[in-house]
Amino acid sequence: MNHVVIIGGGFGGLFAARALGRSGYRVTLMDRRNFHTFQPLLYQVATGALTTGDIATPYRLVLRGRDNVYPLLSEARSIDPQRRVVIHDHGELEYDTLIVGTGVQHSYFGKDEWGRYAPGLKTLEHALDIRRRIYSALERAEVEIDPERQRALMTFAVIGAGPTGVELAGAIGELTQHYMNGDFRRIDPRQSRILLIEGLPDVLPAMHPSLRAAARRSLEGLGVTVLTQARVQELGAEHVSYVTDAGTTTVPAATLLWAAGVQASDFGRMLAQATGAQTDRAGRLYVSPGLSLPQHPDIFVIGDLAHCEDAAGATVPGLAPAAIQMGQYVARLLRARTRGRSLPPFRYADKGSMAVIGRNHAVGDLHWLRVSGFTAWLLWILVHILSLIQPEKRVRVFVQWAWRYFSNQSGDRLITGESRKP
Amino acid sequence: MNHVVIIGGGFGGLFAARALGRSGYRVTLMDRRNFHTFQPLLYQVATGALTTGDIATPYRLVLRGRDNVYPLLSEARSIDPQRRVVIHDHGELEYDTLIVGTGVQHSYFGKDEWGRYAPGLKTLEHALDIRRRIYSALERAEVEIDPERQRALMTFAVIGAGPTGVELAGAIGELTQHYMNGDFRRIDPRQSRILLIEGLPDVLPAMHPSLRAAARRSLEGLGVTVLTQARVQELGAEHVSYVTDAGTTTVPAATLLWAAGVQASDFGRMLAQATGAQTDRAGRLYVSPGLSLPQHPDIFVIGDLAHCEDAAGATVPGLAPAAIQMGQYVARLLRARTRGRSLPPFRYADKGSMAVIGRNHAVGDLHWLRVSGFTAWLLWILVHILSLIQPEKRVRVFVQWAWRYFSNQSGDRLITGESRKP
Repeated sequence: MNHVVIIGGGFGGLFAARALGRSGYRVTLMDRRNFHTFQPLLYQVATGALTTGDIATPYRLVLRGRDNVYPLLSEARSIDPQRRVVIHDHGELEYDTLIVGTGVQHSYFGKDEWGRYAPGLKTLEHALDIRRRIYSALERAEVEIDPERQRALMTFAVIGAGPTGVELAGAIGELTQHYMNGDFRRIDPRQSRILLIEGLPDVLPAMHPSLRAAARRSLEGLGVTVLTQARVQELGAEHVSYVTDAGTTTVPAATLLWAAGVQASDFGRMLAQATGAQTDRAGRLYVSPGLSLPQHPDIFVIGDLAHCEDAAGATVPGLAPAAIQMGQYVARLLRARTRGRSLPPFRYADKGSMAVIGRNHAVGDLHWLRVSGFTAWLLWILVHILSLIQPEKRVRVFVQWAWRYFSNQSGDRLITGESRKP
Repeated sequence: MNHVVIIGGGFGGLFAARALGRSGYRVTLMDRRNFHTFQPLLYQVATGALTTGDIATPYRLVLRGRDNVYPLLSEARSIDPQRRVVIHDHGELEYDTLIVGTGVQHSYFGKDEWGRYAPGLKTLEHALDIRRRIYSALERAEVEIDPERQRALMTFAVIGAGPTGVELAGAIGELTQHYMNGDFRRIDPRQSRILLIEGLPDVLPAMHPSLRAAARRSLEGLGVTVLTQARVQELGAEHVSYVTDAGTTTVPAATLLWAAGVQASDFGRMLAQATGAQTDRAGRLYVSPGLSLPQHPDIFVIGDLAHCEDAAGATVPGLAPAAIQMGQYVARLLRARTRGRSLPPFRYADKGSMAVIGRNHAVGDLHWLRVSGFTAWLLWILVHILSLIQPEKRVRVFVQWAWRYFSNQSGDRLITGESRKP
């Protein structure tokens, strides 16, 4: 039987696996975690609105009932394209067709040591680390006597003003301006300083200028200082330095968060080497319009790891809907092959993008429609509730959001992971 | 103003703090975590039924609106009873009245190195550690080729058959016998071996013999082997040895969980030294019938840390309802003092105890009523849903349980905490 191996269970890999259920193929979905993470809501775990279980789903549960699809908890280390073998932590696995969707990781522009000071947001552990930093900083500010140090503890800097950076900065603004109101005695969280530092001339570069302006206004309404055309020069344990036309500024800040550059995952880079595939500057692999590697028609690359120009000539963006469409396209292609048919090249159905900026505010660029403010926020909630993988998560997340909205009580503010005793 | 310092925000400390809201006292609730943990449901986080946010509540949220009660995130290190000062991580704190409820921790009978192999279950981190061990063992068994090693990976040993041990063993039984059905390809989780090892002659020693027999039957129905009058002799990374009348048995088992002995918390031991208070063998402090230390009427000890014989002469057990009653009693006593009154000695209202053993099975000894089986299970659910601190948690936990019950999909099986990349 034809064996399809999928490496990486993000949106691309998971939707490919689901779409290959009962297909006649034998499918192995290999991931180094035992669960799929709903990345678009990670920032809500990081800022304490949702809890871990709300946005993560074990593969064994999502794939139940698809007897031909086999989840394997292991990390892929390399491949041998001649022998058609994946080498992973628990052995080797032969494939007939390989689908790789291992995504991207943070890039610190060659300064990897910055990662210690300014974590990015790609995994649940990152989200819990960021949450720990945000809430611990305010708790420490509450007991700090030195006013300068207290000021640094109440200063947050988010580097990068794409959707993740904007959503993080907005959520921290909402937290300090609104949800924490009255929670402390010695400090007033509304006095927090939130910097959003971006090298480009504006926030949310993928959106229409009118929406960027709306996003900027919403951010400023939440106390976020938006610094554009500002390049980060140095990061440390408790400070950030950035350069603008006006010169270099150093700000003492205890909480630094990274939402700037991305680069191909380690496995993606290995794959490019092993196959001789061409990559772009971020290490993403160029794929043919059928999403396979030009020299290796049996290897497909999907999701954020792929650099794809679709049938319409557009570069497919690194967004969850694009990854889902690519995963489903490859599954349809493989299914068509079993019937001796082929498919036209991949074409990305661009439904636009959205970003939420705190309570009651979002921006959505759906191309045929641009919305901002409360309407966009309601639309954002609807889209995200419906996108959750399991029905019971939809109910739970909805209850959590509604409760939070009306009671002003944050969902999951737990500072965990610092257990001092065995 | 009279300053009451509460150390430890478990059930005793938290309920004392709540009951002292708007009392005329200035109250500081000091805890080394920023949240209260609902310990009776920790085993459900450990076995993947609930997620962390379901059973933990930040102090700042629970105490909102009680302007005289101040939560302080810090760890108490020592006290000076002469100067009436608590020394903690962020400085010193003067008190007029001290309430200590820092509880108990696991005791490995002098073999502290066993803690590495067999974690106990007192904190959220413990629960996530245990969950990681249980689910990782089965995932590793799935890819293991050596049958002996596979057998060890599918063997679970729980040491101690009090309520926690029984509930853990029962939940693992339920998981492997029922919820994981069909989730693996190479292994059959129903072939798992679960040992419940207890030194005493029976499980659940605090319950009536008829309920113990019912609990034993339920456990055996879930594939749990109950070994009583079995003393653990040695623990290692992947084995446990125990001694019975028949001699010594060594069982290869990859997952060992500790639910046997407890001893006073570190702060409790320090308190006994600093005050010269008498302690029992587990280090619990003997308190007067008014719950204060005999030589220090300004220091109250409540909850699991107290060794208390109440007005009726009964020893108060280490259970959540007892801790709550003790916390509320001290608060009432302090409130009575402001009106120049006194209170009769503490009297524990013993409503009995319950233990749940998997799906549809529980035992409840309410003294006037003994229930087991499905009725007890429904009662257990009702009691625990109503006991949750926040209303929105009641809805979320109920949705989770109902979904799990009818869909057979476990709630939160995530193996976390092993992020390999920064």
